[in-house]
Amino acid sequence: MEEKVLGDYRIFRVVELTQDTDHGPRKRFVARHPGAAVIVPILDDGRICLIENFRIAVNKPLIELPAGTLEPGEDPTETARRELAEETGYRATSIEPLTTIYSSPGVFDEQMHLYVATGLTPGAMALEAGEQIVPRLIPWREALDMVISNEIEDGKTVVGLLAAHAKGLFEGKGG
Amino acid sequence: MEEKVLGDYRIFRVVELTQDTDHGPRKRFVARHPGAAVIVPILDDGRICLIENFRIAVNKPLIELPAGTLEPGEDPTETARRELAEETGYRATSIEPLTTIYSSPGVFDEQMHLYVATGLTPGAMALEAGEQIVPRLIPWREALDMVISNEIEDGKTVVGLLAAHAKGLFEGKGG
Repeated sequence: MEEKVLGDYRIFRVVELTQDTDHGPRKRFVARHPGAAVIVPILDDGRICLIENFRIAVNKPLIELPAGTLEPGEDPTETARRELAEETGYRATSIEPLTTIYSSPGVFDEQMHLYVATGLTPGAMALEAGEQIVPRLIPWREALDMVISNEIEDGKTVVGLLAAHAKGLFEGKGG
Repeated sequence: MEEKVLGDYRIFRVVELTQDTDHGPRKRFVARHPGAAVIVPILDDGRICLIENFRIAVNKPLIELPAGTLEPGEDPTETARRELAEETGYRATSIEPLTTIYSSPGVFDEQMHLYVATGLTPGAMALEAGEQIVPRLIPWREALDMVISNEIEDGKTVVGLLAAHAKGLFEGKGG
């Protein structure tokens, strides 16, 4: 399959793919992304550390799980550990894989690696220039209610909270 | 906020946004997308109509809910009805909103509108040129197992199945 780079936009680049099909060659535009790590930070008392994150793409703040883009060659577990500390201040003693998803595979190759972080101790945040992020500690039952009511609109956050619940990871936690 | 179009790639276009922040102007590249409709088609016997969809962006088939891009000015409920028929052949007597998500709001403004389709009757599919789609009827419990085992890797499909389950929409259904 032929691939031609059309534009480089820092976090992602756009390529044109030419695929041979039964109907002849088919051209498609695809955005290539290095992938992301997403963290479900569960405190011992059953609260989840979500963040309020102003998103310029949709021009409003969204309630999200902490997350970030993989650096070149970086293991996604390390991205998870780094972004959790930068965006929330929390350091985790345990980071375990939860699931992986493609965010929008019709036009975008971004793969998101989701983790559950536990054994959390607070520390200093380290936001990048221009990041507008405010951590919010929310009991897990309330966070699930915010998914059901659609107050939470971010796809990866819906996946992280519902998948952690479906796997029983909140059981026995307060909150 | 200033916005400049840098590239037009059929389904999406890339723009450069300039935002005023406390640290001065900040430039960001964002991909703009018209939005998508996603359908959770629940048969009377409790099976879900998923599709196996070859995705050129990730170079493999993914198991997904039927979905499609909004046409200009199209109500997402109509997109849902149209894409359900085209990709699976099923016509629905009821299309009800389930939830909405942003697929990857760090770089992409795509909003996905999820619906539950019931009262399904089979009919003829109408795939677009080059689409490689095979419908698969799967009992809902098995579909949830495929989410938990990560055999299902598509974000919108994880959201649709887990949200429908969390809202009790599979209750009383066989499968």
